[in-house]
Formats: sequence, structure tokens, C-alpha cells
Amino acid sequence: MNILPVELKKLINHLTILPGVGAKSAQRMAIHILQHKQSQALELATALNDCVQKLKKCKQCNNFSSDDICSICTDPNRDQRTICVVESLSDLISIEQTSIYRGLYFVLLGHLSPIEQIGPEQLNIPTLLSTIHTQPIDELILATNATIEGEATAHYIVSHIEKDIKISRLASGVPVGTELEFLNSNTLHQALSERREILEKS
Amino acid sequence: MNILPVELKKLINHLTILPGVGAKSAQRMAIHILQHKQSQALELATALNDCVQKLKKCKQCNNFSSDDICSICTDPNRDQRTICVVESLSDLISIEQTSIYRGLYFVLLGHLSPIEQIGPEQLNIPTLLSTIHTQPIDELILATNATIEGEATAHYIVSHIEKDIKISRLASGVPVGTELEFLNSNTLHQALSERREILEKS
Repeated sequence: MNILPVELKKLINHLTILPGVGAKSAQRMAIHILQHKQSQALELATALNDCVQKLKKCKQCNNFSSDDICSICTDPNRDQRTICVVESLSDLISIEQTSIYRGLYFVLLGHLSPIEQIGPEQLNIPTLLSTIHTQPIDELILATNATIEGEATAHYIVSHIEKDIKISRLASGVPVGTELEFLNSNTLHQALSERREILEKS
Repeated sequence: MNILPVELKKLINHLTILPGVGAKSAQRMAIHILQHKQSQALELATALNDCVQKLKKCKQCNNFSSDDICSICTDPNRDQRTICVVESLSDLISIEQTSIYRGLYFVLLGHLSPIEQIGPEQLNIPTLLSTIHTQPIDELILATNATIEGEATAHYIVSHIEKDIKISRLASGVPVGTELEFLNSNTLHQALSERREILEKS
């Protein structure tokens, strides 16, 4: 639209970097900001700058932190002998929300993808392997996605561990609350072959 | 989540000013930016600052512009004797996209709402009335929303015009491409009472 001021066009354009935001939503957002949220927009700009400029990757686990080592890695109440490998910060947050896991993490920030030229170095896997081999780590939980790329990444890590530790993968099966009829056959196959014996016949 | 760095929490919080973005989407957006769009995020921050700081309201029509008078008001190819009154910049854009209207606009940036303490002054209606009464304006198109507030705002403007000009309201009726069965009865009532005679019986 030639009638829009260039500053507004730029804002609309830049808003499309947000996931799930296309040209139409970006226009709606930009106009909403301009008409109703001018002071908050300046705060959002500061927050964006702060996040990008002040946060760095934790040297130990690749998680984002304002310090060299993140708050999870330095938490004395967490089990320092277990590492859970996840693909992204969102996965870390999802696992934290279950409250069942109290160990450390390693955030790959992606998965192996030869097409996108993402190899083990881009995911900092050498750092992870070095931590496993040099630190007193007892257990590794591979919580990469249940996708081809996630499985391949997990497989790569497992095949490069030269230490006798417990290694596990998240259980595969029927999601809680799901009706079997809507499940894909791979999942059902997995759920059948990994069926659990019911021990308590009360 | 206490595990998140304070900068990230702030960003998540500020992203919720965007329309349609709740806490969950804001978290997803913030993590996406941090993991994949760091340099673009800095550009977005600059675009937000520029938009808020450089754009002002056009003194003639209330539209946003980097100059005192916007590009529509100063366009010599537009009909300077017709004004179309809209509630927001999005409405102006929608009308521009039809390519049928080539006059000027007046953007109210809202509608009359005693509950929210939005009166004629907040909508700059005195400026609109003064333009109508002092400039060579021939026609006024009231394109406020077909809601109670939009109708009330249009009615207020009409009742304060002391000049003999053509005043119109957007036609009310069946939206193009709609099946009657899904239409509310007010719209159908309106469409019946304002039915058009078919002149060409070819």
C-alpha cells in the first residue's frame, strides 16, 4: 500500500519475523500498536534489544542466560549427575513444567540436518560429549523430538558415548487423554511393542 | 517459570501487547526470536522505535504520517471535495484496497463511547466539522462501523453539520458471496427494506 508511511511499512515487514505472523496479522499488529500501544511499544523495543544483547549461551549447557553459566547448571539443589538433552528451550520449559525432572539439561538448539548444513559442531555436541566423558555424569536422557531428525540426533549422540552410563530415551506410546481411533499406526505399533505389564492385580 | 532469565521473561511479557498474542504464544515468539532471529529482532526494535517516534497524526485528517500533512491529503490527484470518515487506519486501508474511492479521509481513531470517556474531542470531531464548514467540501461519506457505537458516532457527526452538503452512509445489506441462511435477521431486514430495483430486464 503506497498510502502507508514508510516507517509503518517497515514495522509491518519486521513483525513477520514472529512465528505464525503473516503480512495480514503484521499489519493488524502494527496499526494496533500505533493507535493504542505507543508507550508499550517502546518498552517492547527495549525488551527485544536487552534480550538479544544481554543473553548469551550457557557455556555448560547451551541454555540462554545473562551469566556465563545458567541458573539451572549452578543450582546446588539439582542432580548434577544427570543430563537431559533437548532440542530447544521450549522443550526444556515443557519438561520443567512436569516437575518430575530435577537434573541438568543440554540444549542443542536444533537437530542434525545435513540439508541445512547443521552438523554436530553447530549443535555443540562435542561440548556435550566432553562433559559426559570428563564430568561425573551417571545418566543421559535423550529428549529430542520423536521425529526422524530428533531420532537421528539422539542416535548420533549415543553412538559417540565411550563411557558406561545409563542412557534412556523418552517413552513412546499413547498420549494421555487420547482416543486410540485418532492415533497414527506408528504410534500404536510402538505402544503395543513397548506394552507395560500390569503388576498389581488388585 | 523461575528458570527463565529476567530479560526473556520481560520480552514474553511485553509481546502480549500485540493483539491476539497471549502468554503461551508470547513465550513461543520470544524463544523463536532468541534462537533463530537475533539480528532481525534488533531491526524490529528499531522499527518499533521509529514508528512511535517519527509518526504523528496528520493535522488535517488524523491519519498517521511522518509529515504534518499526510500523503493522501497532499495528493493532487485525489478529489479534495469529498471526505470519507472511518474509525481506524485499518478501515482506511480496506477502503483503499477497493480502488473505488479517490477522495480524502478523516480517521477518528475510535468511536464515541461515554463509558470509556471518549467524546467528540477525543476523536477530533471538532476538527472534522471545522474542515467541512470552512473548506470547499461537497460530500461526506460516513464509513464508521455498522455497530451501535459506529452508528451513534455517524449520527453525532450528521447532527452537527450546518452546511448543505451530500451526506451518505455505506450501504447495508447482504455481503457479497454470503448465503442468506447464515445471515442475521437485522441484516436481512435491512437488505429487504433497502432493496434495489433491477432496471435492465435483458
